[in-house]
Amino acid sequence: MYVSHLACPKCDATFDAEARRQVCTCGSPLLVRYALDQVADVLSPGVLAGRPSTLWRYRELLPVRETANIVTLGEGMTPILPLGKIGAANGMTHLSLKNEGLLPTGTFKDRGAAVGVSRARELGIDILAMPTNGNAGGAWATYCARGGMKAVIVMPMDAPVINQKEITAAGAHLFLVEGLISDAGRIVARAVSEHGWFDASTLKEPYRIEGKKTMGLELIEQFGWKVPDVILYPTGGGVGIIGIYKAVRELQQMGWIGERMPRLVAVQSTGCAPIVQAWEAGREESEYWPDAATVAFGITVPKALGDFLVLEAVRATGGCAVAVTDAEILDAQQRLASMEGLFVCPEGAATLAAAVRLAEAGWIQPEEHVVLLNTGTGLKYPETVDSRPPCLSPEDSLPPLSAP
Amino acid sequence: MYVSHLACPKCDATFDAEARRQVCTCGSPLLVRYALDQVADVLSPGVLAGRPSTLWRYRELLPVRETANIVTLGEGMTPILPLGKIGAANGMTHLSLKNEGLLPTGTFKDRGAAVGVSRARELGIDILAMPTNGNAGGAWATYCARGGMKAVIVMPMDAPVINQKEITAAGAHLFLVEGLISDAGRIVARAVSEHGWFDASTLKEPYRIEGKKTMGLELIEQFGWKVPDVILYPTGGGVGIIGIYKAVRELQQMGWIGERMPRLVAVQSTGCAPIVQAWEAGREESEYWPDAATVAFGITVPKALGDFLVLEAVRATGGCAVAVTDAEILDAQQRLASMEGLFVCPEGAATLAAAVRLAEAGWIQPEEHVVLLNTGTGLKYPETVDSRPPCLSPEDSLPPLSAP
Repeated sequence: MYVSHLACPKCDATFDAEARRQVCTCGSPLLVRYALDQVADVLSPGVLAGRPSTLWRYRELLPVRETANIVTLGEGMTPILPLGKIGAANGMTHLSLKNEGLLPTGTFKDRGAAVGVSRARELGIDILAMPTNGNAGGAWATYCARGGMKAVIVMPMDAPVINQKEITAAGAHLFLVEGLISDAGRIVARAVSEHGWFDASTLKEPYRIEGKKTMGLELIEQFGWKVPDVILYPTGGGVGIIGIYKAVRELQQMGWIGERMPRLVAVQSTGCAPIVQAWEAGREESEYWPDAATVAFGITVPKALGDFLVLEAVRATGGCAVAVTDAEILDAQQRLASMEGLFVCPEGAATLAAAVRLAEAGWIQPEEHVVLLNTGTGLKYPETVDSRPPCLSPEDSLPPLSAP
Repeated sequence: MYVSHLACPKCDATFDAEARRQVCTCGSPLLVRYALDQVADVLSPGVLAGRPSTLWRYRELLPVRETANIVTLGEGMTPILPLGKIGAANGMTHLSLKNEGLLPTGTFKDRGAAVGVSRARELGIDILAMPTNGNAGGAWATYCARGGMKAVIVMPMDAPVINQKEITAAGAHLFLVEGLISDAGRIVARAVSEHGWFDASTLKEPYRIEGKKTMGLELIEQFGWKVPDVILYPTGGGVGIIGIYKAVRELQQMGWIGERMPRLVAVQSTGCAPIVQAWEAGREESEYWPDAATVAFGITVPKALGDFLVLEAVRATGGCAVAVTDAEILDAQQRLASMEGLFVCPEGAATLAAAVRLAEAGWIQPEEHVVLLNTGTGLKYPETVDSRPPCLSPEDSLPPLSAP
């Protein structure tokens, strides 16, 4: 393992990575630091090319010491697919989508869970607790089942039913709360303090982000160790965008890619857009967004602990933050499914809506390489599709298809 | 492309593969034949090792001439995961599961759809029609959307709602029928005859099976070009087991593997077990199973067109056919999710129930390498999980966890 230490991005304090740690003494999330010069000595793109297509191909850049501690379901190396028809219709020649819907529980949350649970097991932790809007709970409960650990999950009662089902199936301890993820977070914080459980809340432990980082590592490897011009990311807690930025920086420090940055775009819903508000106001942190509500439930995060890191990633890469409406999201979701065969989650669809706006505004140029990060499968969001097919009796005949 | 011709396994008639074809003049399904000696000249395991992790890595063994005709969502190379805990608890040291839930629409149907739709596009077909129990319709509608083709899908009104949603999202023409898949099949057959559409029903076109074949190719490559001792497969239409057997035979003919066969086990539900009944009676074909009903909806196929091919694959490999109850299926599903982190479909869970029975009976030996084929994700079957979590108010506290 090449982890050197944990570091605080706010107060610069450092900590031993072998101890069980949550956040910095100042309250900030901690980041994992590596001896990147040593990694560069032992790892090269050529070595990587021969490894299995899972996120564990990047093990020198991941925080697990013993292979035996890896808790895996074969996750990673999700495909990047060209969006030829939609790109052409919206003035983008090189528009593509990285589809995290092909991960084991159907969302990008598997990356954080695989690495987070593996490291927790390595550190001897046997009970994890976390609040969730649904998909993270599903992923962590599932990986805890695989790793033989216990998970306590608290989520809003409005979260998708499918997440209740998968968490229950995984044998986790599930509680609903009449409120938002922030209410669930406060319940977890009290229980962690009272019962001595490990708090696996977003950015309250240092390792989830390392899993999310592999989205960036994969994407850059899939582009032949180059960065695309623009990456659009649906932003709730923001761990994904922070992780992608961290991947870019680490590869730059290892000399594998040049200094050119992909412009990172944080995409939110107009129903919950604290990061966009802060970015437009030029602030370094966001403010709590009251009465948050959007069809893209996964990004209903009124105040993210890592907001300052998201805003830093957007600024440092020359990116931007964009909010789109629920109507735009559902329209984009429908177009992706019917034009490109990609039934994605509303959060993922939001990135297309944002890309279209940015292309119309000239912020995205026609020839630029643009990647949408779809964070999950639409199969977990059946309520977003209105389906009322006609019902036949066995003797009925089908009509001819009308001209298109 | 190395396709030499289409061949009838019943009457030995042969056909040109460049023409649009459904079944043989004798009514039997047709199989695709290749110039395997020429494939063996240009392809080797070493060449394959460097290719992308999709089923198109086997393109010399697939029936698509022009790369430009490939309709893909990045499907293939699904993981094989050890089931250490369940294996140990049931006397199987080397029990593992190949997880087709990680394919684009969440089931193994994507393989047949990717290859079938690609070849249909290559042959100039623009409207496909098919009956389905749900997942095949979802897959074919999705790949048709990706390929810019029209799909007409007819399925039982009792089929899972999620399949209605995904088919509608893909923009296909969807009809429900008050009846079983056999009723849907008759409606499609009449419409195909009347409107001149291409019939994409199971085994009524020769190419779907070539996609399913890649399950076998992958599995054997993942085992280091060896075959496991036993492969258990949930059997409805049976295309998967026919495809795996075809993969084994082709690799044998190319000299890549020896003559030892993996014993293929056709797993059905006691609620619909025509193949098991025929196998037990020593017959070469099955009889229509009246009043078919099982929680494993995907294998509710009362009479499969390819039944004789399934029975041949089982017999030729020294395999067997086993029926398990719905209660065993749901119990196996629950254990896979909670003990191994694998939330699978009931059809996939049936293979575990069957393996446990066969191990108890001594038909599977403790040291044998046994692979369960899970055909899809449990996320498409939320109704199989009973989840009633307690609901808290934001001020509530969580109880400590009781000892296990």
